[in-house]
Amino acid sequence: MDRLIEAIEAKDNPSIVGLDPTQALVPSQACTMEIEFNEKDLESFIEGLERSSNPEDQRILASINNADGTDAKMKVAKKVLEGDSGAQIVMGFYEFNRAIIDAVKDIVPAVKPQIAMYEAYGSIGFDIYRLTCEYAQKQGLYVLGDIKRGDIGSTAAAYAKHLTQINSREDDVNGRPWYEDAVTVNPYFGTDGITPFTDAAKQTDKDVFALVRTSNPSSKEIQELELADGDKLYEHVADLVEGWGADSIGKYGYSRLGAVVGATHPEQGRELRERMPHTFFLVPGYGAQGGTSADATQMFDKNGRGAIVNSSRGIIGAWKKSGEYREDMAKEEALDLVGRSARAAAIAMRDDLRKALH
Amino acid sequence: MDRLIEAIEAKDNPSIVGLDPTQALVPSQACTMEIEFNEKDLESFIEGLERSSNPEDQRILASINNADGTDAKMKVAKKVLEGDSGAQIVMGFYEFNRAIIDAVKDIVPAVKPQIAMYEAYGSIGFDIYRLTCEYAQKQGLYVLGDIKRGDIGSTAAAYAKHLTQINSREDDVNGRPWYEDAVTVNPYFGTDGITPFTDAAKQTDKDVFALVRTSNPSSKEIQELELADGDKLYEHVADLVEGWGADSIGKYGYSRLGAVVGATHPEQGRELRERMPHTFFLVPGYGAQGGTSADATQMFDKNGRGAIVNSSRGIIGAWKKSGEYREDMAKEEALDLVGRSARAAAIAMRDDLRKALH
Repeated sequence: MDRLIEAIEAKDNPSIVGLDPTQALVPSQACTMEIEFNEKDLESFIEGLERSSNPEDQRILASINNADGTDAKMKVAKKVLEGDSGAQIVMGFYEFNRAIIDAVKDIVPAVKPQIAMYEAYGSIGFDIYRLTCEYAQKQGLYVLGDIKRGDIGSTAAAYAKHLTQINSREDDVNGRPWYEDAVTVNPYFGTDGITPFTDAAKQTDKDVFALVRTSNPSSKEIQELELADGDKLYEHVADLVEGWGADSIGKYGYSRLGAVVGATHPEQGRELRERMPHTFFLVPGYGAQGGTSADATQMFDKNGRGAIVNSSRGIIGAWKKSGEYREDMAKEEALDLVGRSARAAAIAMRDDLRKALH
Repeated sequence: MDRLIEAIEAKDNPSIVGLDPTQALVPSQACTMEIEFNEKDLESFIEGLERSSNPEDQRILASINNADGTDAKMKVAKKVLEGDSGAQIVMGFYEFNRAIIDAVKDIVPAVKPQIAMYEAYGSIGFDIYRLTCEYAQKQGLYVLGDIKRGDIGSTAAAYAKHLTQINSREDDVNGRPWYEDAVTVNPYFGTDGITPFTDAAKQTDKDVFALVRTSNPSSKEIQELELADGDKLYEHVADLVEGWGADSIGKYGYSRLGAVVGATHPEQGRELRERMPHTFFLVPGYGAQGGTSADATQMFDKNGRGAIVNSSRGIIGAWKKSGEYREDMAKEEALDLVGRSARAAAIAMRDDLRKALH
């Protein structure tokens, strides 16, 4: 956890920006790959299709010929050339993410891409997730991949490739990384589901964050169950996590295995901070989910260390509340607004946390 | 769950084949895309590079020219043309999976691809996972995607796209599915992490399986914790799962929300069978993990229904125990052995379960 702690101290800012784009959070300008296409282009496109013996090309040709009039034919051809609309949207996410990263990279130490938002777009979504991680890492940011994977040992080892490198033949020197500095994991399987991740983290100087007390309302149904020994379930999980990390404590007193503790449970967070003295906290739930800076500060130690607070929608969606957005903006203008708004929101969050902590 | 139950009864076989390939479980012949390449091909490859102005092509040309002698030059050029070794391996998984599916499709009702094994190969791995699901579904098999996702509500909704379709623009008529009939999910978030999946399942006539009592040794550390009310944690999760499914009970008395209950806990499985009368069980842990057919039958109801038993390595790795494999086998021969061995193992498992049940 040393690298993350040093990144936080260098910027005097214990906050992390969640990169969880959705179509609603990204200006439509970023998600359109509209091609330029005139009548002459249409002619040569049709000629190319006529020369082809590929049955798919013949089908496209037939649907162009069936369209009534040049404008309609152009529309069909353009739609073919513009391709899959899901791919266009998620490629827009990449441009959106870069605009955010460029705007906040001198302010925040870390970003947290949520893989589910990319997984929803299929395999190209994973390319965009990985490109986002790579871009952020190359801008000097610590990248916390919010993947929440968890399974039995042999399967967890496959997921732990997120921290080492994408599988290839052993003699392949071009191993490709996921570009994540840490990942989140689910503790429900116990030790054997966690060890493959913590082993990979030790091997690669990276970190892992296990779910302990999540920020969502219904998390209490399981996590707050009272055990026979008087503890709550999340407290027992907390003790397990503190124990699993015990052999990887770094120079600031925190292990490589952190814990996810929602800002929506400040009182529990304060108790967990004492109960888990060597466990660094990732604190979601600030902002849009209702957690305040006063809530979040419960998760810090007496030196003002020990936690990093996440905000996603509050920062990446700040442009929507700016009042400056117009649908007829050019793409560059819209992405500029996204960046400026995110930067202002990230500064406000940093200052809010600094004030609450000092 | 009706479709799964009918598929099981049609084949009189409550077993499911886990498609969890690893490099060790797949004959190397399937994972090699060795190209045919003679001296004349080398010449025209070099000519092509010389005509290109692409800097990457110029680098390749330089490394070919630096190689000493025709054989060495051929080797460099081949390696370039054969491409990424991880991609080769995971493309081999697809051929391996098809050999298994073709060999067992008239015997077993369902397959369970484990997404982690594909995710380890990056975005092309997800293409292969999806192609595997598609191929299996088109052969008439029920496809249970073992994804074990789980997150807060808004994020779970993105993961639930596995059951609806890969995201695209709303007006895109070419929506692409993941080709999964069901997925596994993690219950740690409580109701809001589950509802997006069960809603999607109801909308698409599909199913969901929540982890209750997993098959791995350390699962007891959390799942067997004793609660203040005398129940074990997994029993409480069982009650939640039974309740979450209550509004989707089908014509055979089972809901759309099943439970994962490991064959390695037969006594607990027997009790859970009574405790969760409307919850269908996915039973991992038979075979390689130590569960027997007598253990697995504890999870069935008095009509011999209510559960499906998974075997992965025992079936897809059966070729390794056949004694027939030779490293110099042709690819087709090796895949034929994989299929024949899997078929024999699947028949043996079916007969073992039938005998134990009747």
